[in-house]
Amino acid sequence: MTLIVQKYGGTSVANIERINAVADRVSRMRSAGNDMVVVVSAMSGETDRLLRLATEVHPNPPPRELDVLIATGEQETAALLSMALQQRGHDARSYMGHQVHILTDNVHGKARIRMIDDARVRKDLGRGRVVVVAGFQGVDEEGNITTLGRGGSDTTAVAMAAALKADECQIYTDVDGVYTADPRIVPDARRLDRITVEEMLELASLGAKVLQTRSVQFAGRYKVPLRVLSSFDEGPGTLITFEEHAMEDILISGIAYARDEAKLTVTDVPDRPGVAWTLFAEIGAANIDVDMIVQNVGADGLTDMTFTVHRADYDKALKILKKVAQALSAGDVIGDDKIVKISVVGVGMRSHAGIAATAFRALSDEGINIQMISTSEIKISVVVEEKYLELGVRALHSAFGLAGPPAAG
Amino acid sequence: MTLIVQKYGGTSVANIERINAVADRVSRMRSAGNDMVVVVSAMSGETDRLLRLATEVHPNPPPRELDVLIATGEQETAALLSMALQQRGHDARSYMGHQVHILTDNVHGKARIRMIDDARVRKDLGRGRVVVVAGFQGVDEEGNITTLGRGGSDTTAVAMAAALKADECQIYTDVDGVYTADPRIVPDARRLDRITVEEMLELASLGAKVLQTRSVQFAGRYKVPLRVLSSFDEGPGTLITFEEHAMEDILISGIAYARDEAKLTVTDVPDRPGVAWTLFAEIGAANIDVDMIVQNVGADGLTDMTFTVHRADYDKALKILKKVAQALSAGDVIGDDKIVKISVVGVGMRSHAGIAATAFRALSDEGINIQMISTSEIKISVVVEEKYLELGVRALHSAFGLAGPPAAG
Repeated sequence: MTLIVQKYGGTSVANIERINAVADRVSRMRSAGNDMVVVVSAMSGETDRLLRLATEVHPNPPPRELDVLIATGEQETAALLSMALQQRGHDARSYMGHQVHILTDNVHGKARIRMIDDARVRKDLGRGRVVVVAGFQGVDEEGNITTLGRGGSDTTAVAMAAALKADECQIYTDVDGVYTADPRIVPDARRLDRITVEEMLELASLGAKVLQTRSVQFAGRYKVPLRVLSSFDEGPGTLITFEEHAMEDILISGIAYARDEAKLTVTDVPDRPGVAWTLFAEIGAANIDVDMIVQNVGADGLTDMTFTVHRADYDKALKILKKVAQALSAGDVIGDDKIVKISVVGVGMRSHAGIAATAFRALSDEGINIQMISTSEIKISVVVEEKYLELGVRALHSAFGLAGPPAAG
Repeated sequence: MTLIVQKYGGTSVANIERINAVADRVSRMRSAGNDMVVVVSAMSGETDRLLRLATEVHPNPPPRELDVLIATGEQETAALLSMALQQRGHDARSYMGHQVHILTDNVHGKARIRMIDDARVRKDLGRGRVVVVAGFQGVDEEGNITTLGRGGSDTTAVAMAAALKADECQIYTDVDGVYTADPRIVPDARRLDRITVEEMLELASLGAKVLQTRSVQFAGRYKVPLRVLSSFDEGPGTLITFEEHAMEDILISGIAYARDEAKLTVTDVPDRPGVAWTLFAEIGAANIDVDMIVQNVGADGLTDMTFTVHRADYDKALKILKKVAQALSAGDVIGDDKIVKISVVGVGMRSHAGIAATAFRALSDEGINIQMISTSEIKISVVVEEKYLELGVRALHSAFGLAGPPAAG
């Protein structure tokens, strides 16, 4: 018997029609003999509606009560999907976090799962029942309702799959898999059949928001076979795998990008210990995430330090840096909020030289100036002017031969 | 320290403005030094919205899942009210049925409360917290979510008050108390300061839907002082009391009525044992509630049997009776679905003779023909033609001197 955990996101259960479509799919797979556990998100729009209500009674809604409020969204979907499955002749049962006991810590709004008591689910599966679990929610040790934060339903699904040792965890969303590049930019981008967890993590952190980083990490840690599929189409999706050897023939998995970046440079920073710390401590204290950091070793004991932040934090960061620069007796603070980051991702580059050269040449051939470079073991990222985003992604996609046969129309 | 349990119904928490008004009221009473437990219903319209969704996925929604779905309504309100109270500087916490452990049987949709574990609520009250409880819901022994059926939030409040030995249980609704008659029919009807549980039960069963019968019974059994008030106005409301002696000076508490009644007569029924049973067994099997029953002792071993049912069940009852009458070799079945029931209610009539005479005379003076009469220890009910409803209620209200001073405008 194959045990499959499926997760359906907000757009996949957006209305009764979509919930019925999900029920049809689950019903088919159950009838084909699979044991089925289904994790659901709130109907899209529902969480926003609840958040709006909350801010109407409290400008800064208290986290414990906010969790109680928004946990109702997933509860609704879970009950409705169970009904739809019963209507199709399956014995289905919905469970909330307090019932299958998804025990979390007590950090409301971004709780972390500590343990899942899978006894009840196993018992139901043993009786042939389809188990529907409200995603995104759990309870702390005192029985308070908690929520897991962004992408929480993915995490619920992966944690369920890990606890049940499921054969596969299928994440249904509105895209049919992971692509070699954003198909809106590169029309001949190809869906990947497989990708490694590490590549997936790089892609997720680079703005390819198919899966939340946290659930991918979770899957990696517990070796849960994870598959991304579309609930709007049929198709095999993309399997996120741990078997690196199977990937040897693939050099590069895809080209990712992040819009809405901004870059800041502090010039003539005294090059002595503790200076970098002072700079980033102030930025961090303001809750600004720093992404790429480049430091040029300079002459005369002075150095230029450049880093990128999210564009929304640009003004705040600029203001802080000007103060810090003065305190450090550094030079100017120069900024540019019209940049983007493009990355080449692939585990294959570990064992292949010349990837960077190929990438830089492809961009150079198009006359694209590279402003910053940052590399990791499986990724090369460059910062370029915003207007070159599409051209740069296409040039790299083509340079690494990622184009596939055009999708059947 | 006075411990007050309050319950706010759907219209009292219909929107954010109303929830804020409730928070203001609770806040005032807490600040005045009372320990406060607040039970809330779903925002009016919310339960209907959820029911609509349910019937869209399942023509006959499975009860367990329906309970999971509609329990979210009260959860929403409880969280929002807690936030509104925190916004007013109070430490407030919302609890669901599974958290304060409102243990019920497993009859989904009309579960009965078995036990409430009040430890958590007491602990919170001891810390000065306002406790907000989602009404209408509980959990069975296996942790499944259950709902208590119509008027369930009233029952939650009364059960909470009983478990906590509260000083008073205040039911806030959209009327400011119990009246001597329906003010829409009798403009000078007077709000009663107090009424006995028994009178309240008679009024509730007679269609004066201020409180559900079940919660009044519950209050009576556990001697919970119950008060009905309006959340839209200030005012003392009506206290439902167990102290009969205080009521001695009041003869009659009010005039109630039930519209939408119908009456059925089976003529020439053989007057032998088991016949009545046969008649009512068939009616009962069809889930039709029978109200008043009158049997005239007849001559020749034959009798006429008349009873009333809700008008919605009239056609069904007529059809069944015709079949049964034939099987019993009885005579005709005659029906009338244009009747109403008017009742005089008051514990005072126990010790006073002549109430029936006064009532009959008042109706007779207005030329109203009485079709059926039924009496209990604290109630006299008559069935009259539908068109006499208002006239009859007013005549009786006046005959027993129930009119009060006109309300201040």
